[in-house]
Amino acid sequence: MEGKKVLVFSAHAADYVWRAGGTIAKYIKHGADVTVIVMSYGVRGESNDLWKMPDQTVERVKAIRHEESSKAAEKLGVKNIEFWDLEDYPFPTDREVLDRITRTIREKRPDIILTHDKKDVINPDHDAVRQLVFQGSIMSNSAGVVIPGLPVTKQMMIFGFEPHQTEISDFKPGTFIDITESYEAKLEAMRCFKAQNHLIEYYTQRAFLRGNHARRLSGVKEYKYAECFANFFPRVAEEF
Amino acid sequence: MEGKKVLVFSAHAADYVWRAGGTIAKYIKHGADVTVIVMSYGVRGESNDLWKMPDQTVERVKAIRHEESSKAAEKLGVKNIEFWDLEDYPFPTDREVLDRITRTIREKRPDIILTHDKKDVINPDHDAVRQLVFQGSIMSNSAGVVIPGLPVTKQMMIFGFEPHQTEISDFKPGTFIDITESYEAKLEAMRCFKAQNHLIEYYTQRAFLRGNHARRLSGVKEYKYAECFANFFPRVAEEF
Amino acid sequence: MEGKKVLVFSAHAADYVWRAGGTIAKYIKHGADVTVIVMSYGVRGESNDLWKMPDQTVERVKAIRHEESSKAAEKLGVKNIEFWDLEDYPFPTDREVLDRITRTIREKRPDIILTHDKKDVINPDHDAVRQLVFQGSIMSNSAGVVIPGLPVTKQMMIFGFEPHQTEISDFKPGTFIDITESYEAKLEAMRCFKAQNHLIEYYTQRAFLRGNHARRLSGVKEYKYAECFANFFPRVAEEF
Amino acid sequence: MEGKKVLVFSAHAADYVWRAGGTIAKYIKHGADVTVIVMSYGVRGESNDLWKMPDQTVERVKAIRHEESSKAAEKLGVKNIEFWDLEDYPFPTDREVLDRITRTIREKRPDIILTHDKKDVINPDHDAVRQLVFQGSIMSNSAGVVIPGLPVTKQMMIFGFEPHQTEISDFKPGTFIDITESYEAKLEAMRCFKAQNHLIEYYTQRAFLRGNHARRLSGVKEYKYAECFANFFPRVAEEF
Amino acid sequence: MEGKKVLVFSAHAADYVWRAGGTIAKYIKHGADVTVIVMSYGVRGESNDLWKMPDQTVERVKAIRHEESSKAAEKLGVKNIEFWDLEDYPFPTDREVLDRITRTIREKRPDIILTHDKKDVINPDHDAVRQLVFQGSIMSNSAGVVIPGLPVTKQMMIFGFEPHQTEISDFKPGTFIDITESYEAKLEAMRCFKAQNHLIEYYTQRAFLRGNHARRLSGVKEYKYAECFANFFPRVAEEF
Amino acid sequence: MEGKKVLVFSAHAADYVWRAGGTIAKYIKHGADVTVIVMSYGVRGESNDLWKMPDQTVERVKAIRHEESSKAAEKLGVKNIEFWDLEDYPFPTDREVLDRITRTIREKRPDIILTHDKKDVINPDHDAVRQLVFQGSIMSNSAGVVIPGLPVTKQMMIFGFEPHQTEISDFKPGTFIDITESYEAKLEAMRCFKAQNHLIEYYTQRAFLRGNHARRLSGVKEYKYAECFANFFPRVAEEF
Repeated sequence: MEGKKVLVFSAHAADYVWRAGGTIAKYIKHGADVTVIVMSYGVRGESNDLWKMPDQTVERVKAIRHEESSKAAEKLGVKNIEFWDLEDYPFPTDREVLDRITRTIREKRPDIILTHDKKDVINPDHDAVRQLVFQGSIMSNSAGVVIPGLPVTKQMMIFGFEPHQTEISDFKPGTFIDITESYEAKLEAMRCFKAQNHLIEYYTQRAFLRGNHARRLSGVKEYKYAECFANFFPRVAEEF
Repeated sequence: MEGKKVLVFSAHAADYVWRAGGTIAKYIKHGADVTVIVMSYGVRGESNDLWKMPDQTVERVKAIRHEESSKAAEKLGVKNIEFWDLEDYPFPTDREVLDRITRTIREKRPDIILTHDKKDVINPDHDAVRQLVFQGSIMSNSAGVVIPGLPVTKQMMIFGFEPHQTEISDFKPGTFIDITESYEAKLEAMRCFKAQNHLIEYYTQRAFLRGNHARRLSGVKEYKYAECFANFFPRVAEEF
Repeated sequence: MEGKKVLVFSAHAADYVWRAGGTIAKYIKHGADVTVIVMSYGVRGESNDLWKMPDQTVERVKAIRHEESSKAAEKLGVKNIEFWDLEDYPFPTDREVLDRITRTIREKRPDIILTHDKKDVINPDHDAVRQLVFQGSIMSNSAGVVIPGLPVTKQMMIFGFEPHQTEISDFKPGTFIDITESYEAKLEAMRCFKAQNHLIEYYTQRAFLRGNHARRLSGVKEYKYAECFANFFPRVAEEF
Repeated sequence: MEGKKVLVFSAHAADYVWRAGGTIAKYIKHGADVTVIVMSYGVRGESNDLWKMPDQTVERVKAIRHEESSKAAEKLGVKNIEFWDLEDYPFPTDREVLDRITRTIREKRPDIILTHDKKDVINPDHDAVRQLVFQGSIMSNSAGVVIPGLPVTKQMMIFGFEPHQTEISDFKPGTFIDITESYEAKLEAMRCFKAQNHLIEYYTQRAFLRGNHARRLSGVKEYKYAECFANFFPRVAEEF
Repeated sequence: MEGKKVLVFSAHAADYVWRAGGTIAKYIKHGADVTVIVMSYGVRGESNDLWKMPDQTVERVKAIRHEESSKAAEKLGVKNIEFWDLEDYPFPTDREVLDRITRTIREKRPDIILTHDKKDVINPDHDAVRQLVFQGSIMSNSAGVVIPGLPVTKQMMIFGFEPHQTEISDFKPGTFIDITESYEAKLEAMRCFKAQNHLIEYYTQRAFLRGNHARRLSGVKEYKYAECFANFFPRVAEEF
Repeated sequence: MEGKKVLVFSAHAADYVWRAGGTIAKYIKHGADVTVIVMSYGVRGESNDLWKMPDQTVERVKAIRHEESSKAAEKLGVKNIEFWDLEDYPFPTDREVLDRITRTIREKRPDIILTHDKKDVINPDHDAVRQLVFQGSIMSNSAGVVIPGLPVTKQMMIFGFEPHQTEISDFKPGTFIDITESYEAKLEAMRCFKAQNHLIEYYTQRAFLRGNHARRLSGVKEYKYAECFANFFPRVAEEF
């Protein structure tokens, strides 16, 4: 993990924590250079509890989400985090966003991109982000897409987050990452999102279940907690 | 690859060469302990050209296939090869074969099993072998399947060979292994099968195409030739 | 649920508890007539921890499994339970077993059958039982399959258990049953299986996750715990 | 059905009749509150026969479609029908349409939404409407999507119409609704569409075939005619 | 069609009529050489109405089915029909049946095989026959499967019958054959099966619906009635 | 092929050559009327090698691609070729492009359309073109889409090009066209694209592999080289 560059595109303020927080913390701990892009605050689609407060406003919701997400990033050890403050529900899919993503990939030059997987049956924003990030990666890797000062990138690995309801979203596990050593950091990061309290327990238990699966599929007894990702592409390697 | 134990189940005399010869040669070169089980000679289903000779007999076909497969194994560096001489077309799926596979897995204790993938639309034997080997691996890994002197194994990795016509067999590439360094050995091994001459060119070109795919998906320019396998299970790992 | 007849086919001694215990307890509480068939003790495939005891024997494992499963059934309120004591790993798929299943369906005349779903990627026995039970149900419903004294049945509903690793087994949720009111009974039943201790926590958490899904998909806040089943057939009804 | 609110989104003037007319009539008969939104008149894509008349104009086609659809609604007992008069072929997918759908769902607060299923291989408009309605339902159910005077809705059930050619559109039957008692009303409603005469016989026969399927899958002899729908989500219920 | 050899494998006495009767009659009319193999009488699984007669016996059911199927064949113009009188429900899948199929293919040397498609969700016999016929065709085409006096065949085209409930059987239409000219012959043949009266109307309407599909997908107005088949393999041709 | 009208939509300057060049040349040789639409030059996405030249400009790349594609068309015998010079990476999907496609189909009135298949996992432009062309064909075939002077078309056949990496793009072979007689013309046409040198060998080998598949699936020994296409619709025909 040492020296690897990882770029994370999160549709809303907390997605990267629920779905990849343990992996992010682990990579950082082992010397990776991780950047998180929080594309929207999830004001409209992912802040239901905050809207139960009387006289709530968009600005206040954004401020709370910004603070929570920043604190969570800190717990994971993330030093580079950007908030793009795009709208959500629906997520904007115009050319400007696509070009911004492409430019960001050219700037960061990641070895690994983490983002939403291709289908989330109850969250169309996640589908939109996946489509945008994927198309941006293709453009970034194409020499004819000329951006002065930002040379073409080479094909990076891309992995998709686990959606909330996996089976009905046709999610296919491609890679389990053992997060036993960074599990505590993930717990602390999740606890920063007070407005989504019910999700903390949900993703705590999911880490446990994925740990069980990881043990069963690998025969490695030491795997206690895991995160699961879809593979955008087959693995290409020197050995199995 | 050093020290890894690899067990290869090949339905017929040449399958392991066409589909995994480069990977086998590479593993051996780097210190792996590889065993190949040739389950049948493919007398009825995979020796069409030999049957064009006048007065051909089952015994002669078996002898030729035995010699060709042995020579090919030598070219790949395989030291451990077993010929089970089971019938083919159709492949026997009885309890005895299942138990023999289970016992063999207990004896060899592989880190990696290579065998046929779950569907080959023009070769029912390949389907049968896949089903048997998979069930044998489950039994081998189960503590309640008591075989005196042969303790339970732990979950190994299992990968499926590429079938001849991939798309109509629903083959999904899971892992590409770069075989650039062992490509010559594979060529030599393939050339041992004189009765399946047309397949030598076919699998030569396939290694080239898979090399193209491997380069494209990884961004690694050095990958010239590759073999492609299906993943029986998701990957479980410490990092991507 | 009052007056409904439910027939449960469980491949091994504990399957019906992990996968449908809450639903079974709820149906019984509300006046259903539930029969559980434990087809094998799971001596070879589902009793790994018991085989860690020194000098273990098949007879002792069977006795323990019998006692645990009987106690669990009691916790769920099950009065009718049969132990067929078939072999497992591999599961027998001969004509005799098929005919016994057919005959049992004719005798019990269930409105609902619960059994394993069509694919369990790490448990071939579950696949075999599903195939047998389904074929048995087709035969039971066919007038030409004459069994003296046991008239033809009419098409019953059939639902499939959730397997251990759902996504890689292509499990598609068809029906979530709210088990909030019977959750405690399920917990008590699960705790009877001392040799599969790790599964108790696993299925406890799964009931919680499925409760979360059920709430989200229905908008009903009161659903705390749920079990999830595959639909063998589309639903046919008077209204949605 | 008594007291249930049902909201139907029909891409063109006749879709709701061919695909859900029997179910709509039945729900109304039993006291449901049904609203039908005819989103476009289908002037360009679904009025082929009308365009065979000499000197045909868009206005005249719209007038005919409006009258036919209104009469058909009357035959089904529909009291609330809206004609949005959007363009078709292609169907507009801009933000304005999405917001109008969202607002309509907030106003009607349906227990059940009926609309087009996710794929219709020969009708891209149906795909577009499905996508819009689904996204609108997600937004309507999200507290952060603030529409003054129209509070957030809770998750409703959503079902997809059967497309014209089911198998090549990957249509998966999820729920069959028995329409034996409302079949005559559906026939009368279908007969209002003089310009699509060939479809009357088509959907008459389809109701018969679906009745056959419903009987076979349920064992209920009394089901003579049925309509078939896809489930957007798994069923969540107190019992099977 | 002139001079083509067609071999039809029908699991039960009437399957070839419901599913391919129009195509068979058309081929015969145009000079094809068609052989129908009725593998079982369908005594147990496809003769429900006959078993409602008091004191019914297996012998009497067989005799009735034999007569009905023979008459139907006559109506279609079939001169070569064989009744193998195998058991049904369940269908035997032993080596003897496989070898008989293989030998029959070698004898008849068909250009086209018609049989059941790969999945029929409510009829396991159809699955079994498909599997057997397919495996038999592979063996027939393999030079190493030596049958004295019956030389190896070359790859023939194979098409799968439409099952009763297509969508839930994952049936994918591959080829529609226009049967407008032989529709009357099919009607007459279907009317020979008095014990399956409800199916006559069902398959009459299906021919009408498939005719509608055929017209729509081809733009050929003259196609009134059609039968639909799955393609076992992609089409290979000189032109589209 | 004599007298058939074929319309080819190629996303970029060379796609129609790699993927359908042999088929195009064959159709022309046998008297078909073929039009090729090169929708974009592929300046940004398909000209990587050209951008390695120092001081490269968009205009120069376009000029080179135009010349290469024109020469290749000549080698295939194509007389009608249009260059639309649309942007690529990303491909424009606005109403204007859709209407232009629709109008072109009305003008050319093709019996056969060839274009990109529904998914290309590493080329979003191909997906966009497929979607546009398909929607344009639907509109062209709809009488209500009135274009003065251009009467409605009837349903044509549509086939999808093979993408570069087939299995991970879910490409399903529907039709293999034997191109043995036009193979040399295809080779010459491919050699015109100097900037995509690595693709010449790739598609040369692919023609060989597809020839192998075509032989195997048809039993016709004379098929040496082939191209493979996806079927947008099932085949509708007078005979198999």
